[in-house]
Amino acid sequence: MKYSQLFSKTAKNVSGDEPSINAQLLTKAGFITKEISGVYNYLPLGLKTLRKIENIVRAAMDQTGAQEILMPSMTGLESWQATNRQNFDVLFHLKGRDETELVLNPTHEEVITPLLQKFVFSYKDLPQAIYQIQTKFRNEPRAKSGLLRGREFLMKDLYSFHTDVADLETYYEKMKEVYFAIYRQVGLGKITLLTYASGGAFSKYSHEFQVLADVGEDTIYLCERCLVAVNKEIIADQPTCPVCGSQHLVEKQAIEAGNIFKLGTKFSGSLGFKYADQNGEQQLVEMGCYGLGISRLMGIIAEISHDDRGLIWPQSVAPFAAHLISLPGAEIKAQHLYDQLIQAGVEVLWDDRVESAGSKFAHADLIGLPVRLVVSPKTGEQVEWKNRSGANTELIAVNEAAGRLKA
Amino acid sequence: MKYSQLFSKTAKNVSGDEPSINAQLLTKAGFITKEISGVYNYLPLGLKTLRKIENIVRAAMDQTGAQEILMPSMTGLESWQATNRQNFDVLFHLKGRDETELVLNPTHEEVITPLLQKFVFSYKDLPQAIYQIQTKFRNEPRAKSGLLRGREFLMKDLYSFHTDVADLETYYEKMKEVYFAIYRQVGLGKITLLTYASGGAFSKYSHEFQVLADVGEDTIYLCERCLVAVNKEIIADQPTCPVCGSQHLVEKQAIEAGNIFKLGTKFSGSLGFKYADQNGEQQLVEMGCYGLGISRLMGIIAEISHDDRGLIWPQSVAPFAAHLISLPGAEIKAQHLYDQLIQAGVEVLWDDRVESAGSKFAHADLIGLPVRLVVSPKTGEQVEWKNRSGANTELIAVNEAAGRLKA
Repeated sequence: MKYSQLFSKTAKNVSGDEPSINAQLLTKAGFITKEISGVYNYLPLGLKTLRKIENIVRAAMDQTGAQEILMPSMTGLESWQATNRQNFDVLFHLKGRDETELVLNPTHEEVITPLLQKFVFSYKDLPQAIYQIQTKFRNEPRAKSGLLRGREFLMKDLYSFHTDVADLETYYEKMKEVYFAIYRQVGLGKITLLTYASGGAFSKYSHEFQVLADVGEDTIYLCERCLVAVNKEIIADQPTCPVCGSQHLVEKQAIEAGNIFKLGTKFSGSLGFKYADQNGEQQLVEMGCYGLGISRLMGIIAEISHDDRGLIWPQSVAPFAAHLISLPGAEIKAQHLYDQLIQAGVEVLWDDRVESAGSKFAHADLIGLPVRLVVSPKTGEQVEWKNRSGANTELIAVNEAAGRLKA
Repeated sequence: MKYSQLFSKTAKNVSGDEPSINAQLLTKAGFITKEISGVYNYLPLGLKTLRKIENIVRAAMDQTGAQEILMPSMTGLESWQATNRQNFDVLFHLKGRDETELVLNPTHEEVITPLLQKFVFSYKDLPQAIYQIQTKFRNEPRAKSGLLRGREFLMKDLYSFHTDVADLETYYEKMKEVYFAIYRQVGLGKITLLTYASGGAFSKYSHEFQVLADVGEDTIYLCERCLVAVNKEIIADQPTCPVCGSQHLVEKQAIEAGNIFKLGTKFSGSLGFKYADQNGEQQLVEMGCYGLGISRLMGIIAEISHDDRGLIWPQSVAPFAAHLISLPGAEIKAQHLYDQLIQAGVEVLWDDRVESAGSKFAHADLIGLPVRLVVSPKTGEQVEWKNRSGANTELIAVNEAAGRLKA
């Protein structure tokens, strides 16, 4: 795409009431604008990034054989009364025309459990793993962290259904691996920690995937031997590693990037979701749930992967693979390279504007695509290649650029 | 996909409170389930169909050079007060933690106009065409028409911004053609009519795309000479063709499948959205808006394209291209053909269950994929091909099936 045609270029001024780094950078670079606190518009660059993350998560879920559906944001309050969660503090309430009480779902156990009940009757219909990628609403008391804590946000939520605890546990362990594969793919693998957290009313522990970050809202205690952590929330007195029992844990700040729960029979019990076992006896279905915030993950990457000049996107989620800059006198050469890249299927953003080299370089650093390509009269038959994450430039043959970017 | 693995097979019983044909058929065939009135869950088959329609519409918009963004469902009531539409009767109202008044957007003029104001300052920044495909909410008084009238639904809304009326009108005429190309692509081309409707406070007329259907909620008057129609809503006394002036119009029932409006300066005026013209003078931006309900279009296709045995999907939006049925004794041959089709990139649903031929045929007719393929011991080295929309079967070579389905 030609940058001259993008309606939403970088923003000069960012509102002073945006305290989070992720929202400041994403706003400056033209990825998002704030609508109201905790609610954002995704501009073309931001939407492309969001979709890349969404597609990585979708592919990971599909690979496990999970089936994708789409549940609604809105349902009747009675669904939440049936599980006695009608007073959940982040529920948004609204009214239909006939004064029926409605809510916006911040999570979907109340929707998916009755839905599965329509199709699952016997042990032969189990296990099942069903997910969606869908807009969630939470009436947050504080939504001042940009994409990290939204009142409206995009989330992947998967629910699994099993005949027994052993099958649930096998699936749950598999899903831990799937989550780590996702974090590795978006460049967060090395700083994401499996973290023991509250199991709520459901089980002893749930597990969070906490990304180390000084600005993180969560305090965790890391066991450097086991490379797992414990969320401060569940620590009564002395932090202890739940794996090896060590009490030499290190306090760290982190951002939660995913959360998985064994729900057990909490929801199948309150909603009467049973299956007939091999003896024809009715048994409660064992359930698990597995959340991952898509827009939050975009915020985490922005929060962590940047320098004082702007964003630094990993290749897997960058809105474009390369930022082509043409300097005066090299327009025809740039057009030729641009066409060549498009032809090769490389996603390229070409800053074709009449602007100073300095301004174009600053824009490229702010937007943070993985590779910057510069063509000028000085580069001759070559093009200057620079990785956003490095300091060095090198001259390579124009014809080599497409091949390298496809590799 | 193997049908045995699909969690959401056809439903035997459809709730009696579902009066619309589209929702009855889509529920029976396992595409959707009702959550509450006007709010549906999309099951795997339904979501695939919805995404196909979404992608057809997206490609059509992208081809015009429009830029895709994603705006939120939620905003502050003050945005709607600014345009004096806070009493719009389908607005859902909700409250944030601090008692701030929020609404769910049923349309996005109140969001996109201030958004564009951040990036458009001069005639050089115009024209612009920006769209989204996004979940809308409308507090409908009656939501008894399945996917045709939702309280939560998926919609494409595009907004265009121009320096002057002439440029708006050129774009508006182009968009009419783009809409007709979409209706042709989803199999509704021949029965969709450009229909003059109320321009509201904005202009003399808006234009609807009305699909002829006896069950349609709208009454229109068709000029058989000009092949345009007039919505009954705007007829004061005698129906008259707005093109040729003829008064020999035919009354028809129809379903609205899209609506385009010249907004003029209604919103730029109330929100103060101006640009500097070539003389540096501040001028109001001329706007147009172009809506098309994605989930509604799915409902319309189901409502119109079916017989007494079930749905009949056009190839362009069918969740799978072919329905492969294996009869006892032909499992290995079916597996071979299935692998061959998958290899060739054909989307195929294989009913691999142990069920009677009659039951499998009934399921295939109900689901309505464009082509049914049957392999049995009797078909030998061949496979029986039947189009869902026809009555004839023919035997073709197994190796020919993939090629035909790709064509």
